[in-house]
Amino acid sequence: MSYFSSDFKLGILGGGQLGKMLLYETRKFDIQTKVLEASEDAPSKIACNEFVLGNLLDFDAVYNFGKSVDVLTIEIENVNTKALEKLEDEGVKVYPPTKALRIIQNKATQKLFYTDNNIPTAAFSRFAYTSEIKDSIENGGLRFPFVWKAAQFGYDGQGVKVVRKAEDLKDLPNVECIAEEMVSFKNELSVIVARSASGEVVTYPVVEMEFHPEANQVEYVICPARINEDVAKKAQEIALKVSNKIKQVGLLAVEMFQTQDDQILVNEVAPRPHNSGHQTIEASYTNQFEQHIRAILDLPLGSTENKVAGIMVNLVGAEGHTGNVVYENMEQILKLEGVTPHIYGKKQTRPFRKMGHVTIVNKDLSKAREIAQQVKETIKVISK
Amino acid sequence: MSYFSSDFKLGILGGGQLGKMLLYETRKFDIQTKVLEASEDAPSKIACNEFVLGNLLDFDAVYNFGKSVDVLTIEIENVNTKALEKLEDEGVKVYPPTKALRIIQNKATQKLFYTDNNIPTAAFSRFAYTSEIKDSIENGGLRFPFVWKAAQFGYDGQGVKVVRKAEDLKDLPNVECIAEEMVSFKNELSVIVARSASGEVVTYPVVEMEFHPEANQVEYVICPARINEDVAKKAQEIALKVSNKIKQVGLLAVEMFQTQDDQILVNEVAPRPHNSGHQTIEASYTNQFEQHIRAILDLPLGSTENKVAGIMVNLVGAEGHTGNVVYENMEQILKLEGVTPHIYGKKQTRPFRKMGHVTIVNKDLSKAREIAQQVKETIKVISK
Repeated sequence: MSYFSSDFKLGILGGGQLGKMLLYETRKFDIQTKVLEASEDAPSKIACNEFVLGNLLDFDAVYNFGKSVDVLTIEIENVNTKALEKLEDEGVKVYPPTKALRIIQNKATQKLFYTDNNIPTAAFSRFAYTSEIKDSIENGGLRFPFVWKAAQFGYDGQGVKVVRKAEDLKDLPNVECIAEEMVSFKNELSVIVARSASGEVVTYPVVEMEFHPEANQVEYVICPARINEDVAKKAQEIALKVSNKIKQVGLLAVEMFQTQDDQILVNEVAPRPHNSGHQTIEASYTNQFEQHIRAILDLPLGSTENKVAGIMVNLVGAEGHTGNVVYENMEQILKLEGVTPHIYGKKQTRPFRKMGHVTIVNKDLSKAREIAQQVKETIKVISK
Repeated sequence: MSYFSSDFKLGILGGGQLGKMLLYETRKFDIQTKVLEASEDAPSKIACNEFVLGNLLDFDAVYNFGKSVDVLTIEIENVNTKALEKLEDEGVKVYPPTKALRIIQNKATQKLFYTDNNIPTAAFSRFAYTSEIKDSIENGGLRFPFVWKAAQFGYDGQGVKVVRKAEDLKDLPNVECIAEEMVSFKNELSVIVARSASGEVVTYPVVEMEFHPEANQVEYVICPARINEDVAKKAQEIALKVSNKIKQVGLLAVEMFQTQDDQILVNEVAPRPHNSGHQTIEASYTNQFEQHIRAILDLPLGSTENKVAGIMVNLVGAEGHTGNVVYENMEQILKLEGVTPHIYGKKQTRPFRKMGHVTIVNKDLSKAREIAQQVKETIKVISK
C-alpha cells in the first residue's frame, strides 16, 4: 500500500520529543499517524492523528498497535522486538528492521557485529556479568583504565562508566556488559546515513561533537566538522558500510572517534533521528526527520547538503536548579543572528536534564561558532 | 504576562492551513495555544493545545474565546471586530490591532487609507452599491475597462472582476464596492513586513509573483524578485510605510504592482502570514510564521535574509478533476534537487482548489526556477 492511499497509517513507537519532530514532517506529506506511548503527557500527543497508551516493552501492546498500521517505525530503541518480529512475519513493514534493531539494542552484540564485518571499533571484552570483570583483571586479561558499558538499556550518561581502579567497579549493576579500551581521540564525530527500503543510500556531512565534561551529554554539534577532507571521507565511508551491512531502513546515526593518528573507530549507532542531526532542520536541504520519512516510505531521498553551516547547542538544566523551568535571557539570544530555539516543553528542570536545543546557522562556520558560544553563555535553564 | 509563564495562552482565530503552519512554530517556543474555528475538520486541530468550536463572525464566540487568552491573533481577516475591540478595551492584546484590521477588512476603507497617507495606489472610486456604477459610467465619471472589487469578503478569485463593458456588470452582487483603474504592470510584487508590539520593524526581500491567467491564483512566488535594486528598495520602503502608518503588530504582507514606468502601487495587504511568504520556511533565516510569533509576543525579530533562493509553486486541483485527491508523480518531484512538498491534507480536489504548495530552494535562483518549472509540469493534483 502506498502512503498516498488515504487508508495508509504510519505507526511510531515512542512519543517523545524526537517523535514529535518526526510527526511535524509527516504533515508535509499528509500522512496519517498513530503513536504508541506509555505516558499520557507525551510530547507527541499534540502532533499525531491517533494516540494509543501502552508499554513499548509489552508484547501485546506493541503487537496490537503494529497490526493497525502499514509501516512501523521507532523514536526510541527500547521496544519489544519479539512483537516486531511477529509483525514483520505477518507483513507489516518494520523500519528499522527487527534484525538491525536487535543488533543495536545490545551493545555487546553491536560490538561483535562490527568486528565480524571488519568495521573499525575500539577493542573490547564481553562479560555476562559485571562480577566477571574482577577475575579478568586478576588473571591479566583486562587492564585499567577501561570503559564499562552495560550491554542493554544504557542512555545519556547512564550505563557507561570510566573504570580506573578496582573500586570504581563497586557500585555498577551486575549485568551483561562490555569493557572497552579507552580511546585517545582528537574528535568525536557523527555521520547520519539514510537508507531507503529499496536500498538508496545517502550520507549527511560529518558533524563534530563537543561533550559536557561532567554530564556526558553533547553540548555543541558542529556541521560541517572542522576536519580534513580525507578524514571526513573515511568517516562517511565507514558510516555507509555500517548502514549497508546492518541492512538498515531509515536513518542510522553513526557516532565515531577520530583517534590521534586519524583512525576512525565506530563508537555506537542509533537507528533513528538523532541529537547529532538536529541542526539539519535549519541547515540542510532535507532535514533528518523528513529524510527518515522518505527512507521508510521508500520515497526518493533528499539532498543532504548544507544550505549554510549549522551548530546545535543543547539546552540542559543548570546545576543547582530543580523545579518549574524558566528560560532566562531568551530575549537576548533571539537578538543574535540566525538563532532558533527549540524548547521541548518539559515543565520541570533538574541539573543536566535535556530541556531543548538551540540552532545557530550562518554562511560562515566560525561566525556561527562565536554566536553559539554567546548563546551558551547567555541562556540559562533554571527554576523559579 | 510574559509568554515564559506557564499560564500564558496564545489564541488564534481561524483553524486553517495558515494557522496550522503558525502552530508548528509555537512549539519551538513551547507556547500554549488555543484555536477558535467553526469546522470540526479544521487543519489546526492536530497542532493546538486546545480547540474551540465557534463562528469567527459571532460576537459572543469571539469575545468569550478572547477572554480566555493573553494574546489573540488571526489567520484569516473575516472575524468579528466588535468583539476584538471590546477585548482590547479589557486588556487582551489583539494583534493585528482592531483598528488596523478594520481598515484592511474593507477594501474601500483600505484604499482611502492609502490616499490619506500618501501611499501610492491605483486610482479608484468607491460605490455604496454596484448599481451606482452604471450612473457613473453614463455621466462620464468612470470609463471601461476597470476592476470591480467587492469592498468586503473578497477572496482568491472571488469578489474581483475585470469589467470591460456594461454587460460584465450584470451578474455582480449589488454590494459596497470599488472600481479601480486597470494598471498596466510589469510585475506583481510582495513584501512581508514584520512589526513587533514595541515597534521594531523588519522587511523580507521583495518577492515576485506569477499568477495563473484563469484562476487568479498565484502559481509561482520567486524570492528574491528579479528586479533592479532601486525598485526593490522602493517597494520595501513603501511596504514599511504601510506597516508603520497602519500601526500593525505582526506580519503585514503588502502586495504591489510594478508599473511599466517602474512606479510601485500598493494593491492590497494582509495582516498575517501570507501565501507570498511560504518559501521562507525553507529559504529564510527566520520563516514568516516564527516571525509573526516573535512580533506579537514582542520578542526580538529574526533575520529576514535568505539562506538560499526560494521559489514556491502552488498545488491547485487540475481542471476536469473533482473528487478524492491523488498527487500524481509525487515520487518524480522528490527526486529533484531542493524540493519540499507541503500537502494541506484536504481530501477532495476540484479545479483550481488550493491543495498545497511545493518549495524549491537552490543557491542559484535560475536553477531553482528551472526546477520549479519541472515540478509544475510533473506533479498533477487529480481525482481517482
